[in-house]
Amino acid sequence: MNPELEIIGYLGPEGTYSEHAALKFAEKYKITKFKDFPTIPHVLQAVEHGEITLGIVPVENSIEGTVNITLDMLAHELSLRILGEIVIDIKHCLISKAKDLSKIHTIYSHPQALAQCRLFLQNHLTQACYLNCNSTAEAALLVKEGQEGLAAICSVWAAEKYQVDIICENISDYSSNQTRFLVVGKNDFCSNKNRQKTSLCVALAKNRPGGLYDILAEFIPDQIDLSKIESRPAKKELGEYIFFIDCLADLEIEYKHVLNRLKQKCKLVKILGTYNRIEVYNQQDGER
Amino acid sequence: MNPELEIIGYLGPEGTYSEHAALKFAEKYKITKFKDFPTIPHVLQAVEHGEITLGIVPVENSIEGTVNITLDMLAHELSLRILGEIVIDIKHCLISKAKDLSKIHTIYSHPQALAQCRLFLQNHLTQACYLNCNSTAEAALLVKEGQEGLAAICSVWAAEKYQVDIICENISDYSSNQTRFLVVGKNDFCSNKNRQKTSLCVALAKNRPGGLYDILAEFIPDQIDLSKIESRPAKKELGEYIFFIDCLADLEIEYKHVLNRLKQKCKLVKILGTYNRIEVYNQQDGER
Repeated sequence: MNPELEIIGYLGPEGTYSEHAALKFAEKYKITKFKDFPTIPHVLQAVEHGEITLGIVPVENSIEGTVNITLDMLAHELSLRILGEIVIDIKHCLISKAKDLSKIHTIYSHPQALAQCRLFLQNHLTQACYLNCNSTAEAALLVKEGQEGLAAICSVWAAEKYQVDIICENISDYSSNQTRFLVVGKNDFCSNKNRQKTSLCVALAKNRPGGLYDILAEFIPDQIDLSKIESRPAKKELGEYIFFIDCLADLEIEYKHVLNRLKQKCKLVKILGTYNRIEVYNQQDGER
Repeated sequence: MNPELEIIGYLGPEGTYSEHAALKFAEKYKITKFKDFPTIPHVLQAVEHGEITLGIVPVENSIEGTVNITLDMLAHELSLRILGEIVIDIKHCLISKAKDLSKIHTIYSHPQALAQCRLFLQNHLTQACYLNCNSTAEAALLVKEGQEGLAAICSVWAAEKYQVDIICENISDYSSNQTRFLVVGKNDFCSNKNRQKTSLCVALAKNRPGGLYDILAEFIPDQIDLSKIESRPAKKELGEYIFFIDCLADLEIEYKHVLNRLKQKCKLVKILGTYNRIEVYNQQDGER
């Protein structure tokens, strides 16, 4: 990899958790060029069209689950590969120009952030209405530019970036809140061939009792651990699914025989990427 | 069941696909009282607190997949039971006071509807920005009350209800688009004991290779078909999941031995309901 040629795209504007993940990743690989995009599809399409070389997109949150658009586009629309993953600790806070909670009438945030703080909002801000934004940082920006009755759920980092006061810290309903991001690109960015993890999607030839069981059976002889399995609609009719599987083994090299057996049983097997396991970063670390 | 005592709650306002599902269900069971709520949690909590006797909530769409809030609340927060399911054909249209697409600058809809029409919007309305609403009917109402440059994605039914012109019909990116709704309540509303389907959630005692495989193995001897399996975060840490399973058998009566075996293997087994299989309604039918 030549760091000078790499450009990382992320879900903007400045101050998103995605930007935080992009900075952490760039630091490690000495990449210095960034570009922000308004939505996840914009990031992914920019990589697909060669406008940027790498994209960082959220794929899964420990409370709200999968970011569907990311998985669906990788499976159905794009020819990108997953090259790595990063996990960021999520710590939401409530920011506003208002001096106390009773003055707040409207709360902006990304729908996942609103969902992650639902019980807090129900208990402390029953009078307010909620409005969805494309990102937590966009919400912070709206509060910075708006009137006193507005509030946003965002990171401490975004609060500092947009210079709006934090009214409540750590407002997530669950103590542990992490988001996993995927790094995607067209070509591998480092030459390390010792991958620990494979993401793939598979579809059965037809729905029948025991179909999924037969697929999982292929991972048993080699004792391969599945770190995630998730069904998503095949987008044809209700009840037809494809399965997204993350497993802790390299199915393209070391365990290629498993992949070959899967191909015999399934009508679709698409490798989304083989890559190294998780790197976890705390939001409070580093270049806040 | 005494139809006169039943009140059905649904995601409002008038004109939502949820209202359509509620009307279809009510027609069959001769229920005449309805109440609309602003969000899915409001519907579910109203049933939990006895304000209404039945709630109808979306749980799954053939393109966009699971409605997370519905499954999560049934699994983690409420003591309600699934009593039935209804499937509605979804046919989105674009409505606006504008005479042609080039005049439209803002499109309102529910995030799932916007996602289901993403390719249409990319191809025909690149100039417009998208704003999320709580429902497709709320979006229609905003367009009715707003300026000419606004548009909404909603049902034909909502377009007629709010008397806004349809500019494009059938704008969903995939030809088949259906949503499955659950009917939930505290008590069974009919005395038929011949259930065809069970929904349950299970959690493994600990993550280990083959854990899910061992759970699925329990359904094999009786050849029980799993119509859906889906992982959702256990909401503790990333990588810990609970599995939602729909199977085509009554695990509470006829196949109680399967349930008992599952209980021996898992740290959590929660039956969400046993009920009769799907009833499908076309949106164009009936009392439009």
